[in-house]
Amino acid sequence: MIIPQEIIRKKRDKAELSKEEIHSFTRLYAEGQIPDYQMSALAMAIVLNGMTDNETSYLLTAMMESGERMDWSALRKSRIPCVDKHSTGGVGDKTSLVILPLLVADGLAVPMVAGRGLGHTGGTVDKLEAIPGFIAQPNTEQFRSWMLTKRGTFGAQSESFVPADKKLYALRDVTATVESIPLITASIMSKKLAEDIDALVLDVKFGSGAFLQSIDSARTLARSMVNAGKIAGCRVTAALTNMDEPLGRTAGHACEVVECLDILQNGGAEDTRELSLQLAAAVAALGHRDISVNAHDVAYARMQKHLSSGRAYEVFLEIAEQQGAHLSSLERKNTEWIDSGTVDIPVTLGNQDEVTVETIDTRALGILLIEMGAGRRKKEDFIDHKVGLIGIKKVGETLEKNEPACLLRLRKNDLQTDKLRAMAASAFRTCDKERQVRPLPLICEWVK
Amino acid sequence: MIIPQEIIRKKRDKAELSKEEIHSFTRLYAEGQIPDYQMSALAMAIVLNGMTDNETSYLLTAMMESGERMDWSALRKSRIPCVDKHSTGGVGDKTSLVILPLLVADGLAVPMVAGRGLGHTGGTVDKLEAIPGFIAQPNTEQFRSWMLTKRGTFGAQSESFVPADKKLYALRDVTATVESIPLITASIMSKKLAEDIDALVLDVKFGSGAFLQSIDSARTLARSMVNAGKIAGCRVTAALTNMDEPLGRTAGHACEVVECLDILQNGGAEDTRELSLQLAAAVAALGHRDISVNAHDVAYARMQKHLSSGRAYEVFLEIAEQQGAHLSSLERKNTEWIDSGTVDIPVTLGNQDEVTVETIDTRALGILLIEMGAGRRKKEDFIDHKVGLIGIKKVGETLEKNEPACLLRLRKNDLQTDKLRAMAASAFRTCDKERQVRPLPLICEWVK
Repeated sequence: MIIPQEIIRKKRDKAELSKEEIHSFTRLYAEGQIPDYQMSALAMAIVLNGMTDNETSYLLTAMMESGERMDWSALRKSRIPCVDKHSTGGVGDKTSLVILPLLVADGLAVPMVAGRGLGHTGGTVDKLEAIPGFIAQPNTEQFRSWMLTKRGTFGAQSESFVPADKKLYALRDVTATVESIPLITASIMSKKLAEDIDALVLDVKFGSGAFLQSIDSARTLARSMVNAGKIAGCRVTAALTNMDEPLGRTAGHACEVVECLDILQNGGAEDTRELSLQLAAAVAALGHRDISVNAHDVAYARMQKHLSSGRAYEVFLEIAEQQGAHLSSLERKNTEWIDSGTVDIPVTLGNQDEVTVETIDTRALGILLIEMGAGRRKKEDFIDHKVGLIGIKKVGETLEKNEPACLLRLRKNDLQTDKLRAMAASAFRTCDKERQVRPLPLICEWVK
Repeated sequence: MIIPQEIIRKKRDKAELSKEEIHSFTRLYAEGQIPDYQMSALAMAIVLNGMTDNETSYLLTAMMESGERMDWSALRKSRIPCVDKHSTGGVGDKTSLVILPLLVADGLAVPMVAGRGLGHTGGTVDKLEAIPGFIAQPNTEQFRSWMLTKRGTFGAQSESFVPADKKLYALRDVTATVESIPLITASIMSKKLAEDIDALVLDVKFGSGAFLQSIDSARTLARSMVNAGKIAGCRVTAALTNMDEPLGRTAGHACEVVECLDILQNGGAEDTRELSLQLAAAVAALGHRDISVNAHDVAYARMQKHLSSGRAYEVFLEIAEQQGAHLSSLERKNTEWIDSGTVDIPVTLGNQDEVTVETIDTRALGILLIEMGAGRRKKEDFIDHKVGLIGIKKVGETLEKNEPACLLRLRKNDLQTDKLRAMAASAFRTCDKERQVRPLPLICEWVK
């Protein structure tokens, strides 16, 4: 029997914890044998003193083993690799809706356990729930059966999936122990590895619209997650991607789904499309174990084909239908679920001449979305799937005289319109159109 | 309304907490509005990031204000200063029993809230309870009425006295957050200042028989406590005293009481007597606000007189009687409570020649006392008041051939005698008697 305070003491005094110590502590915590007050003291010691790669790996394994794990040996028998893409989250980040069908179209299986939005960033589960009928939080049996039929399923963390993470995450949230590379690594990677996947691409976002501000901190987290995945025997690559402007031209739930449907039908925002193709290509190359020099380019070309042929769109519709979505809604003739009862308010910046968008305070737009009702302050908050930002101008683009920088899609009875419009306007900084402002890069670096 | 995790975050990020933040957090914790898991995270952040003198002072004030406080304005109206002495604890540390009557004999009032033993050090409350009839944990009304009658009372922390400290101390014990200068300072000083005293002398012990090992750590703690006391308007001085050998010639409960009774009757161990006189003189000089150059020496001379005249002994008997002690027992003709049912086992070191005691592993003797039944591993443990060590030889003293280094006073039916004797013997290191071994100093430094 371990003595919990002796393990806390070791971490407090910067000693390395053993596998046995970390596994016992985590298991007893998940079982309720170790109380929250001992776990929060250990978590604070980890925040302040860090963890070695080995410790992080033990913690994530212990967490992963705390509940039900997926098992795709049936798919592997048919030589179908299981893969996933995970993003650390940002404003307008919606690539999962495009990437999952691309990968399934490429012959891969994708058991994607996604998250809900919290704070200034959105979540895939919430976006999917904007679609009438879509069951974005299937139970374990549904998830398994859908996966075996369609090879791609969108899900959400259930009570029995990595329960140690669920419990610890809620505790960290109220004890100021969220910001820790090893704890974030263990939280994300325990859930991804419990999906029983062979390959994973991480989209680690940095900038004002992400949780991490600097590329350095993104690189550190990416390195930690890639190492932890490899120790656990999963092939992992991470992309460090820019979040100093919203991704695509929409942010909100229904409007982001529409942007993705447009991309799947060969329209949509160029940057969302490009990032989706790049990340999907990286997953596909890893998933198919293609280690040739031009593996990424070959996979990228396949992804383009899956889009242009309409195959990825077909796959999305099949999966959505299986998950309960009303296909008539997705066909866009019925726009009831997208914008009924809303009004689009142009956000002009009062410019008398043509100007260029120089920077966008993306975090401010995320907070604006919360104010508009599209985001949550607390887990229990209700969200409005229809409101959001559309027609967002990007950094480097030119605004004609009085051309809106974006539109606010609000409920018709919204009483805060003026305040919200002012908040949106102040997030855009412009400069003389003669000045050269480069578009922001999408992927800045790969961590392998 | 404060947000607890924002306060934890500030301390985690090394920012200074405000008076309002510390008071609110502490009050809400004491009231049960802030749960243990948030307090333990804050405590760990304090252990690792420290606290400024101001923060420490706010914490101790907040803790002090969490429950009932004493009020000796009635005594002050009669111009009687209220004072106390507090020790951080050590093996054989028994000076409180001598100092309290010395100070009362000197015209001061002493509302002494003492502790019980935990770990390898003893506690005054336990020692007093060795005396038949002695009520060492009076309730609030008894304490107050006895103080106003006799001007000196021995007490113990009740549920309503500094409850925030009681709650936090129990939490720190199981979350590895005990070792923190600001938390120790707030814990000790909140209780001392809640006694409503004007002056305080702290006996901060260091060495193998104390909680702090080095004089440097003792000095740091002493400085922190002296500063915190001064900020709160109390005159405080600290002595850094040596605990590399037991104090006096006894360790245990009844046998330590006997050593003190001997001193009060002008016998007893020289070092216990001397340290008691020195500390009492320091308290008296501070209590009477004597700031003349030779204040300490003058007070010391008065203390010697209180002993030699028998006045201090009289005061002790009066107070003991008031607190329920059977005076016939204290007169020592009745030794029933001291050693009935016990046997004294000599601990010889197997030396064939005269040797000198070079060092004593004092912590080992403290742990031996726990094994013998005189100490506690857990708060709930039963202790045996009669067992202990007597006739302890001191560093620098010579042992004749086969002369015992000490005697173990054990229960007659003790089954571990050989093991305990071996443990005791191995704590003493001797050297050739020709080698010069200096006696250890008592008080190494004053912190003012």
